[in-house]
Amino acid sequence: MAPGKKGILERLNAGEVVIGDGGFVFALEKRGYVKAGPWTPEASVTHPEAVRQLHREFLRAGSNVMQTFTFYASDDKLENRGQNLRLSGAQINEAACDLAREVASEGDAMVAGGVCQTPSYLSCKSEIEVKAIFKKQLEVFMKKNVDFLIAEYFEHVEEAEWAVQVLKTSGKPVAVSLCIGPEGDMHGVSPGECAVRLVKAGAQIVGVNCHFDPMTCVKTVKMMKEGVEKARLKAHYMVQPLAYHTPDCNCQGFIDLPEFPFALEPRILTRWDIHTYAKVAYKAGIRFIGGCCGFEPYHIRAIAEELGPERGIMPPASEKHGMWGAGLEMHTKPWVRARARRDYWENLKPASGRPQCPSMSAPDGWGVTKGHTDLMQQKEATSQDQLKQLFDRSKSH
Amino acid sequence: MAPGKKGILERLNAGEVVIGDGGFVFALEKRGYVKAGPWTPEASVTHPEAVRQLHREFLRAGSNVMQTFTFYASDDKLENRGQNLRLSGAQINEAACDLAREVASEGDAMVAGGVCQTPSYLSCKSEIEVKAIFKKQLEVFMKKNVDFLIAEYFEHVEEAEWAVQVLKTSGKPVAVSLCIGPEGDMHGVSPGECAVRLVKAGAQIVGVNCHFDPMTCVKTVKMMKEGVEKARLKAHYMVQPLAYHTPDCNCQGFIDLPEFPFALEPRILTRWDIHTYAKVAYKAGIRFIGGCCGFEPYHIRAIAEELGPERGIMPPASEKHGMWGAGLEMHTKPWVRARARRDYWENLKPASGRPQCPSMSAPDGWGVTKGHTDLMQQKEATSQDQLKQLFDRSKSH
Amino acid sequence: MAPGKKGILERLNAGEVVIGDGGFVFALEKRGYVKAGPWTPEASVTHPEAVRQLHREFLRAGSNVMQTFTFYASDDKLENRGQNLRLSGAQINEAACDLAREVASEGDAMVAGGVCQTPSYLSCKSEIEVKAIFKKQLEVFMKKNVDFLIAEYFEHVEEAEWAVQVLKTSGKPVAVSLCIGPEGDMHGVSPGECAVRLVKAGAQIVGVNCHFDPMTCVKTVKMMKEGVEKARLKAHYMVQPLAYHTPDCNCQGFIDLPEFPFALEPRILTRWDIHTYAKVAYKAGIRFIGGCCGFEPYHIRAIAEELGPERGIMPPASEKHGMWGAGLEMHTKPWVRARARRDYWENLKPASGRPQCPSMSAPDGWGVTKGHTDLMQQKEATSQDQLKQLFDRSKSH
Amino acid sequence: MAPGKKGILERLNAGEVVIGDGGFVFALEKRGYVKAGPWTPEASVTHPEAVRQLHREFLRAGSNVMQTFTFYASDDKLENRGQNLRLSGAQINEAACDLAREVASEGDAMVAGGVCQTPSYLSCKSEIEVKAIFKKQLEVFMKKNVDFLIAEYFEHVEEAEWAVQVLKTSGKPVAVSLCIGPEGDMHGVSPGECAVRLVKAGAQIVGVNCHFDPMTCVKTVKMMKEGVEKARLKAHYMVQPLAYHTPDCNCQGFIDLPEFPFALEPRILTRWDIHTYAKVAYKAGIRFIGGCCGFEPYHIRAIAEELGPERGIMPPASEKHGMWGAGLEMHTKPWVRARARRDYWENLKPASGRPQCPSMSAPDGWGVTKGHTDLMQQKEATSQDQLKQLFDRSKSH
Repeated sequence: MAPGKKGILERLNAGEVVIGDGGFVFALEKRGYVKAGPWTPEASVTHPEAVRQLHREFLRAGSNVMQTFTFYASDDKLENRGQNLRLSGAQINEAACDLAREVASEGDAMVAGGVCQTPSYLSCKSEIEVKAIFKKQLEVFMKKNVDFLIAEYFEHVEEAEWAVQVLKTSGKPVAVSLCIGPEGDMHGVSPGECAVRLVKAGAQIVGVNCHFDPMTCVKTVKMMKEGVEKARLKAHYMVQPLAYHTPDCNCQGFIDLPEFPFALEPRILTRWDIHTYAKVAYKAGIRFIGGCCGFEPYHIRAIAEELGPERGIMPPASEKHGMWGAGLEMHTKPWVRARARRDYWENLKPASGRPQCPSMSAPDGWGVTKGHTDLMQQKEATSQDQLKQLFDRSKSH
Repeated sequence: MAPGKKGILERLNAGEVVIGDGGFVFALEKRGYVKAGPWTPEASVTHPEAVRQLHREFLRAGSNVMQTFTFYASDDKLENRGQNLRLSGAQINEAACDLAREVASEGDAMVAGGVCQTPSYLSCKSEIEVKAIFKKQLEVFMKKNVDFLIAEYFEHVEEAEWAVQVLKTSGKPVAVSLCIGPEGDMHGVSPGECAVRLVKAGAQIVGVNCHFDPMTCVKTVKMMKEGVEKARLKAHYMVQPLAYHTPDCNCQGFIDLPEFPFALEPRILTRWDIHTYAKVAYKAGIRFIGGCCGFEPYHIRAIAEELGPERGIMPPASEKHGMWGAGLEMHTKPWVRARARRDYWENLKPASGRPQCPSMSAPDGWGVTKGHTDLMQQKEATSQDQLKQLFDRSKSH
Repeated sequence: MAPGKKGILERLNAGEVVIGDGGFVFALEKRGYVKAGPWTPEASVTHPEAVRQLHREFLRAGSNVMQTFTFYASDDKLENRGQNLRLSGAQINEAACDLAREVASEGDAMVAGGVCQTPSYLSCKSEIEVKAIFKKQLEVFMKKNVDFLIAEYFEHVEEAEWAVQVLKTSGKPVAVSLCIGPEGDMHGVSPGECAVRLVKAGAQIVGVNCHFDPMTCVKTVKMMKEGVEKARLKAHYMVQPLAYHTPDCNCQGFIDLPEFPFALEPRILTRWDIHTYAKVAYKAGIRFIGGCCGFEPYHIRAIAEELGPERGIMPPASEKHGMWGAGLEMHTKPWVRARARRDYWENLKPASGRPQCPSMSAPDGWGVTKGHTDLMQQKEATSQDQLKQLFDRSKSH
Repeated sequence: MAPGKKGILERLNAGEVVIGDGGFVFALEKRGYVKAGPWTPEASVTHPEAVRQLHREFLRAGSNVMQTFTFYASDDKLENRGQNLRLSGAQINEAACDLAREVASEGDAMVAGGVCQTPSYLSCKSEIEVKAIFKKQLEVFMKKNVDFLIAEYFEHVEEAEWAVQVLKTSGKPVAVSLCIGPEGDMHGVSPGECAVRLVKAGAQIVGVNCHFDPMTCVKTVKMMKEGVEKARLKAHYMVQPLAYHTPDCNCQGFIDLPEFPFALEPRILTRWDIHTYAKVAYKAGIRFIGGCCGFEPYHIRAIAEELGPERGIMPPASEKHGMWGAGLEMHTKPWVRARARRDYWENLKPASGRPQCPSMSAPDGWGVTKGHTDLMQQKEATSQDQLKQLFDRSKSH
């Protein structure tokens, strides 16, 4: 870490808010550098200018964490997904570290090396084999001297524990996020129990990322916090949710929505939705607050702006943003000027412009919208049972 | 123009499809470089890397036209909107030309210098004064030797005629777009008559941009084409619509929607919506097909992919995109693999995930959703009349 | 007519509001006495108590007109629709007259004998044959001495003219309603021209009924009124619309909506929607204001309550109804008591409780939602052309 | 009971399905005979023909139970709600019994005397005082010799127990329904425990009615059944839900929806929704299946038609109804004929025709849509706490 810059635990221990970054995979897919399906991050090598620019936009939006763009950059994943680039995992991971460090040094940000769930675990490889995957990535992170480590996007707490155990050997601070909702991990382990196991495995920061919308993620982290506190353990908490409204998800999250991944647009959160999210996450005692798939720079800026008073600082990109629509104050039409106020945007229920579309979908796979009472759901009970069996056999995405 | 590269008229005369770019102002607002409200383009000077990167993404997505990022870069606008940067219009316009040229030279793209409507016209300045504004921008474009010129985003055909007349003095090809719908310009001049006047003023390419969704824009350009043909004139046609669904607009377009500009997310078009748009625009005989506010690089890529067979070429960014969801073919879940086919995405009606939101809004200002029969509308008749008066006095945005 | 009771023209000439009744066919289908599909009115003979009770409820709700329940009671229709009851049209028509008269005599109501469009016309029978059908029904109405006559539910103005010509021979006042929208009759004759032709044929009252929602019907009657006034003719105006929201109809009205006739529930108008309708119809100069399919007694009461000040009288059923929710004033919960006020109900946007359903459908048949710009519409252009041909051959319902 | 007619327990013990009737209070409100707010049933005395007709329609639709129209006919309620009719509770209860008996004798139906929750309980009167209220009504039911008794619409299991204890003294079979959802009664007693207590109090039939949509009610009765079976007790089960979709309810049910009671129209169930309900209720082992508020005769007919195969009989009103739209088979338009099939109606997602309305509301009072994750909910947390306190003090409707 650069001299004079504070580390992640130093910040969190001091009660500071640490703002995460947004979703590289989805943002770069829309910009033309990541392929939906494989979702692999070879762009760090092939198009570094695009990755660097996205890092810069998040930094400018207020991000304190530059996560290395190493999602799905484990060797087993890269082979599995058939990226025929003759690029090794090491090359990609190294390039990603360099880009993150370059941009982090331009502002108040740390570099976090990231690992995520592996095909090896899902295809029932042994603990030793799976841990070897993580070790290989960790070697790069150590060589490049990242500031801390994040193990994220795990559907199974067991694999996350293995990842934490490996990352802990580095001596660097370790954060860990599961991609689960209130119903727990894919084996039904509750959020509270998951968190306890991860803290016991050595993580200093626990939370969730991806798969669900902000309120569901905050709710899940609250359950984690309750579990940890009940077990008389200590941890910091993090949350990096989707920027999509997903009230109709089942326990697998947005993967099972019919709109995933190419028709999620109508679900995208507005900046005002993000204000509410940031406030609620903060109130829940979460201090590492960021985003995952769907989060664009302006979403991260909205976190930074909402928590401006608590943090005592506004992000650089706020020079190009009037709070609560203030930029409209000089509009020539009186009815547009009337939108330059907070309660207008807080209370607006934005229309979809899609009168032939519904507001909720029935998720695929399980076929059940949990907690909802639509009459149509019951019809598919049989096929759900069949699908659940399929699902139990192929529990990955 | 680089030796060997074809000009805009050469392409259109040969019946080729020319793909435009997307909306810089909105895209860069989300990336943190443009302020909503003023919407001015000083970023070309202050953050050239961000502007360059966006140009590159559009080029990679298939764009043949790099429009200089000079929207609202006339001196009267820059003063008016209070950008306190001590940057002259000339500086901004020059920087924008250089960035566009730099990226255009990396692929099969032309540079188009752009002007748009001015505060001077809206505040009733004389023809001479308004034309002086355009001349000043044109001087930069000539100095930087752009390939052709676009006058766009005019609500009043008269001002657009003046712009065309100025641009024509350059000897370069001139394209012109109004931001109007089927009801015509702000004085009620029909699309057909507008087009005839613009062709007579000297434009070789006429069409519409911004303010309405793709189908409304295509419909309007068709009316222009009918007018031009009826008058036994000749022109090429262009269309650069919003990437938002706006079935509930009045004649002022999306400016008057309650969601403008900070809560338009639920209206964003999917890539599949764009496929339909590209097909319909092509069938209507339009050959310069691009986008405006809301268009991100993946939207432009969808135009290029839809018209791949007609053009005989796919854009560079398609290396990171499986057609019609093909990238999902290897997914581990059978129900997600089942989405890797065209009719799945063509027929999907995507949910908003917002059960407490409506599908349409009542536009502000006029207060009337034209052509709809909602019982609530009638209630506001009186205030509409009042607002219409206001509106007639302050007809700009 | 009972001594002392005023006739329809006497009332209308005096500027009084005449309140019509609601939709017998749909109301009795839900009560179990009419079969959807044939829609024939044999219940007057087989279950007179059910028909009598519905008349009473409309009378109690404020109806001044008891229309004989003789919709589709022409001999050709009864045969055609295969009602195997060995009941003649005359029997049904006579029983219907007796029931209407019995209830009319219990309050301030007139009896109106009703005829409607015939299968004979749609199968291209001659004017003589079609008129013979109407004459047969008229004989019953004369024998039973109804107070006036209504020819309603005509899609073709020509057949309506023939009906008016027959009914005029009786010397009784004649009202006539087409089931058309602003686009005119099935041959494209405009509402204005239709009205002129019907007035010239002898009708004293002209208007529309069925097929469209209230605002569309009022709009259409306004066009009729403009036509009549432009032709320097005189007439009274009537409107009896659906109690369903139908913003997504094509020119055939609700028949072509996918929900017709068994899933229209989400479209049912609230009593507050009816208040707006009554006000708007009154302001448009329409003085015979009633309802058609979907109108239940409480909808008619809402017309009577809205126009209570203009009429100087409230209907009997208002003893069981607090204006604008006043009945909730003594509720134990404060937030329910807070609903006992006019602006609460006027401004409420009622939820459907159906998150997986859209707000608009694409009508069958033509496949086009006129005036809307949904991207999906264009796709079906070819099949629409085919369907339009089918449609032109089978223009009835 | 008429000689040869089977009693309620005889039927249920034999495994037969008993079909209940629909909602008198709501149906008669729309017909003009019940006032929303007080909701008292004086119409049995003042307008017996209207009450008789509604009984007949339900009988014709397949109902085996004529519930006396005695909802809120206890003396304390009648006084409390200020019905200034100088009618005693006894007069109303007697008239209601006579009407129910008259119609029951016309078909295969039993008469059930009904009591419901009292203002006395809600204002904290003693067990003795509350039981005295029930005894007074029971005296009428014994004098009129009803076939069995139903205690329904209780929010508090304690009061329901008291009612059952009183009714049991008669020696007649006793059924009891709470108006609760899966979260239990207003003191948080779970459905399972409620059911156990009611069976122990002497009820032979237990279940729920009103307040929630069919699927929520069936789910709640299943929880009751599980509780009873776990306690090794025996009972029959009944369900009489709303005919409204209420996915957005809190634990108080539809009372707290903003649309209650005057704008519930968009939520009304179609007949096809009822088919699903009947099937699911039957599969859950419930054999007394009927309806409450919102159920019209055609909804009850849909239960009888869905369970026709299981019961071996179709209701009289089915003579006027083609199964699954069969009545449309002879329609002149091919696209309407295409609707005469089961899967068309089963799969249709009916549109609301209300593009400016949402699909879900936020309930009043608690302000929380339980189980949903809308970002807006959190905002009201404080006022919810305040309202919850209010709510705890005034727990009735």
